[in-house]
Amino acid sequence: MELVTVDDVRAAAELIAGRVVRTPLLASRWSEEVLLKPENLQPVGSFKLRGATNAVGRLPAGQRDRGVVTHSSGNHGQALAWAAAAAGVPCTVVIPRGAPAVKVEQVRTLGAEVVLVEPERRLAEAERIAAERGRELIPPYDDRRIIAGQGTVGLEIVTDLPEVDVVLVPVGGGGLASGVATAVRALRPGAAVIGVEPEYAADARESLATGTVARWPVERTYRTSADGLRTNLSELTLAHLRDRLDGIVTVTEEEIAAALARLVRQSRLVVEPSGAVAPAAALFRAADLPPGRTVAVVSGGNVDPAVLAEAALGRSPAETAAVRPG
Amino acid sequence: MELVTVDDVRAAAELIAGRVVRTPLLASRWSEEVLLKPENLQPVGSFKLRGATNAVGRLPAGQRDRGVVTHSSGNHGQALAWAAAAAGVPCTVVIPRGAPAVKVEQVRTLGAEVVLVEPERRLAEAERIAAERGRELIPPYDDRRIIAGQGTVGLEIVTDLPEVDVVLVPVGGGGLASGVATAVRALRPGAAVIGVEPEYAADARESLATGTVARWPVERTYRTSADGLRTNLSELTLAHLRDRLDGIVTVTEEEIAAALARLVRQSRLVVEPSGAVAPAAALFRAADLPPGRTVAVVSGGNVDPAVLAEAALGRSPAETAAVRPG
Repeated sequence: MELVTVDDVRAAAELIAGRVVRTPLLASRWSEEVLLKPENLQPVGSFKLRGATNAVGRLPAGQRDRGVVTHSSGNHGQALAWAAAAAGVPCTVVIPRGAPAVKVEQVRTLGAEVVLVEPERRLAEAERIAAERGRELIPPYDDRRIIAGQGTVGLEIVTDLPEVDVVLVPVGGGGLASGVATAVRALRPGAAVIGVEPEYAADARESLATGTVARWPVERTYRTSADGLRTNLSELTLAHLRDRLDGIVTVTEEEIAAALARLVRQSRLVVEPSGAVAPAAALFRAADLPPGRTVAVVSGGNVDPAVLAEAALGRSPAETAAVRPG
Repeated sequence: MELVTVDDVRAAAELIAGRVVRTPLLASRWSEEVLLKPENLQPVGSFKLRGATNAVGRLPAGQRDRGVVTHSSGNHGQALAWAAAAAGVPCTVVIPRGAPAVKVEQVRTLGAEVVLVEPERRLAEAERIAAERGRELIPPYDDRRIIAGQGTVGLEIVTDLPEVDVVLVPVGGGGLASGVATAVRALRPGAAVIGVEPEYAADARESLATGTVARWPVERTYRTSADGLRTNLSELTLAHLRDRLDGIVTVTEEEIAAALARLVRQSRLVVEPSGAVAPAAALFRAADLPPGRTVAVVSGGNVDPAVLAEAALGRSPAETAAVRPG
């Protein structure tokens, strides 16, 4: 299987420059050694804009008119809608009936066509639209262009902090982790890239242990608040992670909530639970991580208002526990 | 009166590089023409770190050992404590008795000495400490080093968006506006720098109209939620604004709250009311502003948790009005 190279990531960086936010590294406030990479500041609220912008930018001229389609109603769907609109490329997003009306409206506001289907028919419908209308299917992570685009996060980390020792990256479908590990491994071989998963969606850890893609059903993964990380790996992302990831750790729901509250109150970032998972590892798994200058990727900020309000007011159980030990 | 020059701002930029966050420009999400400069992402949560870092960095060698003192318990006090600690310079912050315990604790956590006094004795106590202990008094805005440091915000705006047409900057004591106007006027003479004030603290507008510093007492300004902007100008900042500011507008409390909610929900930034004032002008005063590519400075993010929670949940009256007109 052909893996993405650091040159692919460099080419993606060149293509997306000026179309996505060049996010800075921010102080974490809880440790001088820990910095944050705030991808929640992308205009659609997540790193997904990088991969989507790279994929759209690499369409052949003829395909640009025929457009793109995807079946993700989450951050990738919004990112693809934004990237397509910015490039003047038609876009269809297949969304399961029953999805929150606000999500549907957001995708429409970005100028994309929305097709509502029964949940189990999402992929089939996207494939049908691709076949019948000539739209190119852009999957959320199982795609070399997407992985190369997400890898620009790693490129920027090494550029801004050449002496980085540890990069913490959340793992859902594995596109971000694959891309970041590709860039960091090539440019800073001494640094460790560590994946982070919620305990309730530790399928990537199992996949890496067994060498085959573990399929954790939604009945098992729904319990994590980090909804962006419920996805399983693909063969392509597993191949990247086996080759390039230095380790993987898990965090609990309480730790995710406590990290989220800290990011809101101490770092002034609005983050979603998935975006708090890597910082949670920096906060609560230091003993399992290599020492040194650490960057935690804050992957996204599309958070439920009630969760944000609770984080602001400090009702997170783990944080209460941290403040009053014993 | 000798005004700060763009060369002073350039020198400040060189000195503070790597010690403050080089903030990016972010899409506002409500208009393609409006971008945000998120200074709430500085480690102490406001642009004040720029001026404080420049002032500390320019101390003569002998003065570094004798240290610095200030009488601001707000964002400037925290910024000076941070900048001094980063440079290994002793720092004293004079805080009025009755200030929230959390503010006192934050300054102490940053390694500064805290001296508690009766509110009316703040300045006198800071001056006494300066005279008796040899500490240098670093005021929050009435200082050329501070103005030059804050001006780096303008330098970065023009660097990142050379075709900028309008820069919106909040006006409290006027240090930020003076610095930004200095940089933008020199580097992009065609752009307009517009100050923004809360209606309840429109003392700078009056000062510019009359040509003398208007003194609005706290009995008049306490009504604005934008507590960072209740301060009056100094002779020094008024001189800069008369020479270099292109106009000044005011916004209402309802507009500040609505802008704050949008920044939290659409831009994923935790902001304080003072930080929402310039974006509020972009949202609600477009008719009074020059047209074109606009950058609004989000000056700070040290917000009361209850205000943030309310913004997250969307109880702002002006926004409700905007969503359901009539």
